[in-house]
Amino acid sequence: MKIDRSRSTARIEADVELLGTAPYTDSATAICRYAYTPTYARTLAFFEERLGELGFTVELDPVGNLLARNRPPGEPVFGIGSHCDSNRNGGKYDGTLGVVTALEICRLNAELGLDLPLQVISFLEEEGSGFGQVLLGSRIMAGTIGAEELAAVTALDDGRSWFDHAREAGRDPDHWRDCGRALADLSGWIEVHIEQGRVLQDTGKRIGIVSAIAGYAHGDITFAGRADHAGATPMDFRADALAAAAEVVLAVERLAAAAGSGTVGTVGELEVDPGLINVVPGRARASLDVRGVDDSLVRRVVDGAVEVARDAGARRGVEVTCAERTSISATPMDATILAALRRAAEETGEPFTDLPSGAAHDTMSVAVHRPTAMVFVPCLDGISHSPAERSDPADAALAAELTLSAIAELVALR
Amino acid sequence: MKIDRSRSTARIEADVELLGTAPYTDSATAICRYAYTPTYARTLAFFEERLGELGFTVELDPVGNLLARNRPPGEPVFGIGSHCDSNRNGGKYDGTLGVVTALEICRLNAELGLDLPLQVISFLEEEGSGFGQVLLGSRIMAGTIGAEELAAVTALDDGRSWFDHAREAGRDPDHWRDCGRALADLSGWIEVHIEQGRVLQDTGKRIGIVSAIAGYAHGDITFAGRADHAGATPMDFRADALAAAAEVVLAVERLAAAAGSGTVGTVGELEVDPGLINVVPGRARASLDVRGVDDSLVRRVVDGAVEVARDAGARRGVEVTCAERTSISATPMDATILAALRRAAEETGEPFTDLPSGAAHDTMSVAVHRPTAMVFVPCLDGISHSPAERSDPADAALAAELTLSAIAELVALR
Repeated sequence: MKIDRSRSTARIEADVELLGTAPYTDSATAICRYAYTPTYARTLAFFEERLGELGFTVELDPVGNLLARNRPPGEPVFGIGSHCDSNRNGGKYDGTLGVVTALEICRLNAELGLDLPLQVISFLEEEGSGFGQVLLGSRIMAGTIGAEELAAVTALDDGRSWFDHAREAGRDPDHWRDCGRALADLSGWIEVHIEQGRVLQDTGKRIGIVSAIAGYAHGDITFAGRADHAGATPMDFRADALAAAAEVVLAVERLAAAAGSGTVGTVGELEVDPGLINVVPGRARASLDVRGVDDSLVRRVVDGAVEVARDAGARRGVEVTCAERTSISATPMDATILAALRRAAEETGEPFTDLPSGAAHDTMSVAVHRPTAMVFVPCLDGISHSPAERSDPADAALAAELTLSAIAELVALR
Repeated sequence: MKIDRSRSTARIEADVELLGTAPYTDSATAICRYAYTPTYARTLAFFEERLGELGFTVELDPVGNLLARNRPPGEPVFGIGSHCDSNRNGGKYDGTLGVVTALEICRLNAELGLDLPLQVISFLEEEGSGFGQVLLGSRIMAGTIGAEELAAVTALDDGRSWFDHAREAGRDPDHWRDCGRALADLSGWIEVHIEQGRVLQDTGKRIGIVSAIAGYAHGDITFAGRADHAGATPMDFRADALAAAAEVVLAVERLAAAAGSGTVGTVGELEVDPGLINVVPGRARASLDVRGVDDSLVRRVVDGAVEVARDAGARRGVEVTCAERTSISATPMDATILAALRRAAEETGEPFTDLPSGAAHDTMSVAVHRPTAMVFVPCLDGISHSPAERSDPADAALAAELTLSAIAELVALR
């Protein structure tokens, strides 16, 4: 495929920069763009106009997901896109770069005369910044959120219902069950997104082909020992809650590394009570975050951590309580799409690698019904969800090129 | 010695209970009795009256330490006592029990016709509740606080100088250097105090003979790693500050246990930043509290902990910074007094043990100049510095008996 990457780079950069300033963000120092706000509507209008110029039929579905296709309903189309809402103190790239890159793919599709059947989707409320519900638009589309759950969704800012806000924004949320139609015609789906990690940067790769989206288990382990005088209590008279927790911190690290397949485990929160230099800790709480593309390995790390906690507690006279917050299964990506992406990446001659996604993405919702894949581009130092988020538009241009190539191959195969 | 312990118990209990209620405390729910307050003056007056009845000459020294002796100045006397100021939310026993027990020793001395030469001291501001300076009265007496340091001491409540407060209370603080005289005539010193730990209770002993007062080192170890996304950062790409800190928590415990001689080590504070379930900890700070009666062992534990921290930091790409807050040397007790106390304890037939004091006491100041020892009595579950503090007056009566016996032996030896 003969593509002028520098032209793609310039167009992607221009779009990202434009959408990174007023009136496309509600903050002077960050990207703040939440579902149903005028700022959000302006951003959707930007894409609607550009895609319309390329001959796409653009509509918002009953809840506000943007849909743009170049074939009539009923004909198969290949899906591309991401989301363009931001988190509460966001950067210019998370989500938006994927929609901008999808737009570039549509431009290239026209310029190269390929006329591939495409559908761009920009999902509503991926970040949960407006209503506290991540992947809201794509979960409605996939039917993985129930009526009762949806009825309970309220805005973080004013506490009023999601239904009210959707209606006021001109949507027709009572027909939310109709949103599923947009997925029916998809022959496949590829989402381009920044990595939100540092693997690509640190290994010198320009492209990551996402092998699977990690599932995760979130929980807490609480340790109840005894708060004693640090000077007057001999070592063998203690029930030190923090020492028990420290064993778990190191066990989580060891167990995750041993599990392999990219499984990761983190203790990110550790609270100590009373937290005084001269008092043996009486209570401690450690959070647990375990993720991986193999659910059985995630479970193995969680179970191992709980076993270490209980053993440490029994040895130390410290009572241990384990509570799971939430857990979701891993989402495998489609082998055929992955193979096509790898071939397309090979053709570019640029360095790429397979890697799992540790973060959640709308693609998880699409994957419930259709074959999916994701393409990651590097971001500076792995920073995201921050105005300090940076990504090179040239990498997104490369992602556009190889995604287009892969789709061309996949569509021809049909 | 023929002593009616139940009578001593009843007298000690009556005195402790009386001083545990208004007008001897400024709180309805705790003991609040700070230097130079009317409540504190009333408490000193209580002891002055009782000791006067026993034929003691009672005075306040220039800064407000209470001194009561039954021999004229220049003649050798054996010192007994403690302090009767409280901490900010105190119990009835910490300090006060030692002065009450000293009073009982003086009563027994009279009743048994022993006429042993005694000097009772109730030290000013041991707890630091009034002016933030622990052991203030005894340090002035021992000359271990300098003029400049003293000039900088201000009240916690109104910020006015200690000198002003002392003057307003009728003292003569400009002559603080004269306070040292009270120690000059002491042939020895024994302080009775609650243990503030749980060793006596948990081992079924009624008396602890303090072998030494522990020295301590207080410090902080700070770990600067990198805050990465917990899902998107593989285990071998991390610089986890908390994992490095967890190594130190366990090392402090292991090193202190291995050091022996009652050396103890505690990480009581552990702060994690940013402290979010889904972020690898970027920074952590662990406090370090190491105590023991052998300064070289305390140093060994501190040095070992720092070495483990630096090694963990180097392995993990985490920057380690160590800072000492303060440290003081251990105070050995006098072998002759200890031997006399042990013989006296043996004679009572009651269970006792040697043990170090993990907490600081006025006896540390006296020990700079004179031979000293301490006797501990059990307190419930090791709780002190709390209204929940409990101690059995029968144990204090036992302490009075064996302290008196030991003094009788020591004075006869002279």
